[in-house]
Amino acid sequence: MKKLKIALIGLGQRGRGLLNNIVNMDDIEIVAVCDEYADRNEDTAKFIQEKMGNTPITSTNSRDIISIKGIEAVVISAAWEAHVDLAVSAMRAGIYVGLEVGGGYDVEDCWRLVRTSEETGIPCMMLENCCYGQNEMMCLNLAKKGIFGEIVHCDGGYRHDLCNEILSGNEIRHYRLRNYMLRNCDNYPTHQLGPICKLLNINNGNRMVSLVSVASKSVGLQSRALETRGADDTLSNTRFIQGDVVTTIIRCAGGETIKLTLDTTLPRPYSRGFVVCGTKGCFEEANQSLFLEENDAEKYEKDDFDWSKSWGNVKEYAKTYDHPLWKRYQEEGVKEGHGGMDWLVLRAFFESAAAKIDPPIDVYDAAAWMSISTLSEDSIAMGGLPVAIPDFTRGKWVNPKPKKYIEDYRLDIIPDIK
Amino acid sequence: MKKLKIALIGLGQRGRGLLNNIVNMDDIEIVAVCDEYADRNEDTAKFIQEKMGNTPITSTNSRDIISIKGIEAVVISAAWEAHVDLAVSAMRAGIYVGLEVGGGYDVEDCWRLVRTSEETGIPCMMLENCCYGQNEMMCLNLAKKGIFGEIVHCDGGYRHDLCNEILSGNEIRHYRLRNYMLRNCDNYPTHQLGPICKLLNINNGNRMVSLVSVASKSVGLQSRALETRGADDTLSNTRFIQGDVVTTIIRCAGGETIKLTLDTTLPRPYSRGFVVCGTKGCFEEANQSLFLEENDAEKYEKDDFDWSKSWGNVKEYAKTYDHPLWKRYQEEGVKEGHGGMDWLVLRAFFESAAAKIDPPIDVYDAAAWMSISTLSEDSIAMGGLPVAIPDFTRGKWVNPKPKKYIEDYRLDIIPDIK
Repeated sequence: MKKLKIALIGLGQRGRGLLNNIVNMDDIEIVAVCDEYADRNEDTAKFIQEKMGNTPITSTNSRDIISIKGIEAVVISAAWEAHVDLAVSAMRAGIYVGLEVGGGYDVEDCWRLVRTSEETGIPCMMLENCCYGQNEMMCLNLAKKGIFGEIVHCDGGYRHDLCNEILSGNEIRHYRLRNYMLRNCDNYPTHQLGPICKLLNINNGNRMVSLVSVASKSVGLQSRALETRGADDTLSNTRFIQGDVVTTIIRCAGGETIKLTLDTTLPRPYSRGFVVCGTKGCFEEANQSLFLEENDAEKYEKDDFDWSKSWGNVKEYAKTYDHPLWKRYQEEGVKEGHGGMDWLVLRAFFESAAAKIDPPIDVYDAAAWMSISTLSEDSIAMGGLPVAIPDFTRGKWVNPKPKKYIEDYRLDIIPDIK
Repeated sequence: MKKLKIALIGLGQRGRGLLNNIVNMDDIEIVAVCDEYADRNEDTAKFIQEKMGNTPITSTNSRDIISIKGIEAVVISAAWEAHVDLAVSAMRAGIYVGLEVGGGYDVEDCWRLVRTSEETGIPCMMLENCCYGQNEMMCLNLAKKGIFGEIVHCDGGYRHDLCNEILSGNEIRHYRLRNYMLRNCDNYPTHQLGPICKLLNINNGNRMVSLVSVASKSVGLQSRALETRGADDTLSNTRFIQGDVVTTIIRCAGGETIKLTLDTTLPRPYSRGFVVCGTKGCFEEANQSLFLEENDAEKYEKDDFDWSKSWGNVKEYAKTYDHPLWKRYQEEGVKEGHGGMDWLVLRAFFESAAAKIDPPIDVYDAAAWMSISTLSEDSIAMGGLPVAIPDFTRGKWVNPKPKKYIEDYRLDIIPDIK
């Protein structure tokens, strides 16, 4: 079997998480790995040797890696601020780019991704695993079948208490730390924005036109540092600029609105806060329920309607409405990594690279989704002023085309999950 | 027993709902009732005669009612756009005003309420029943005890599918209809904003400083009209200006943010979307759960933490943390009307009027809360531009005072629920 030769750049927590998936893929050969910390390179090389039988080339310098002949695809899971430089270098070297999620630092950087991909003809796929979440794909399926009616509004967010992750350890290596000290924006918009954009046909018949963004005060990290590291610790006396809760409202050309929430420094259970509101029904992640007019209209007109009886009904609906790809995936056995999403997004990327076809999430998606971080930073800095969102397709979106996305994605290219 | 002499103005659905509470109050005498539709006056007078033994004066002209000697308090539940004129007239006549909820049409109208109350010395209490909701009061109790830590952000909203209510009947009398045809704003902000403002000490140590507001397209009402009234019906061919989902973000002087959602024309179960985010815990209405760091921190750090196991845990927490007023109220037997809230808010108003004391929700609250409608209208019209929220206290908020609010409200003034 011909194997796809890949490199991994960035071997922190996320890189290792992806690696745990990749070592189970028979059709992938990890030729090289790279991290700025040498100890991570050594540990990873050893791990790959044990699991896959080959010892990858290692370097702390990404240029060494990208210049290796024969690498066909690279997975970039480095610090956010390194993403675009690495992606651009890889595309210039003719290597398919799988770019981990993260927000942009300037609109020019988003344009740079687009420009480089257009000039080189090399795709850049954002590895937005949440596009492959079971609920997200079920909602996509419901939307395509028209069961939500006309979709009018979506909520999404990243509500995940990261304080302990950011603040833990003696040697703070977490790239989030410096971002939380210096920036104030929706620094991590894509987890739910990605699936929402696919639902709303963004960049393909629709586009995001403007946003407003407002941040709360910043007290969560310092309060947790005080609790967990004591009053004398440097971090307990550090000023964090990042607001604890950032709320962003995006307007789309089709008249839809998207509300995004970043909420990563206050105690709470994990949630992506996904909500879909259409003229025929809605989905709500917080209580895992679907409300479909065709089934429920009579019930909720009654005064004694008790919504809590429907909580968790997505499990029941999934039997009918699960996305075909998820149905197949479950039959074959869900692989590890965030409930299977990591596996699916990596497969979509690798299979696209192996077949030399456009990936289901393209460079225009990456640019548009990443731009939300830097644009929300601008809006917050200007007191919530509306900010225009560039059209990274430069007009191509008004001529929508049948696009290779998740639902028609050929998962039979590579034998492993055929 | 001396009875409080009151008048009711506005006998539509809401007025009748309030009346169903009031007829069970032994210390209230309804002296007069008023609605622009004579049939409602007749029906109501008959109902009062049956239930309370006296026949109230009726008129279709509110001036006739307000000029009746001896009326001590008036409950105004008329169409939104009549609220301020009626309240001002009543205050000028020396009558305590209980004003049903609704949004303002211009900031000047909000000032007019404040000015009139200050000039006449007569209070105007907004009858925001949701301030007396069980969950809302439990959260207030938790906040006062410091169990949420420092509160950073709150969500609230009015998510209630009103399409069938607005569109039903042959003779459309619903004041919402004309509003939905002509305006685009958060037309009903106070249900969750009221309790949130009380939680955040708005107008008493804190204030709302600015907002941004964005509306989705408007397709829900027309789509429902088509479904339920057919393609030839006037309403199926009416253009509605009101966006289906309006999202508003408010910034407070203390650095807190408030996110409000109006969502009244798409199918979904009722929700006020209440969320409280603090440095020590959070509350989420959508799954009726409290997450308190002191109890839950260890649990959710685990990879297999299953949030759904905590859904509905507010019932358990209520045993410990229910607000003292609610505990007492339940012991005495919850009265009818929106789970007891209507009873409590009416009692607070009537008892304030009987004792000639300041009500727990004052004219500054009414003005600030109502202003959100007209300011969101401005912001939406200008593409989401930030809009300043006036300080209706004109500086008094920076000198917070122990205020008569719900928690120290004397419910023993009138014997009924002593």
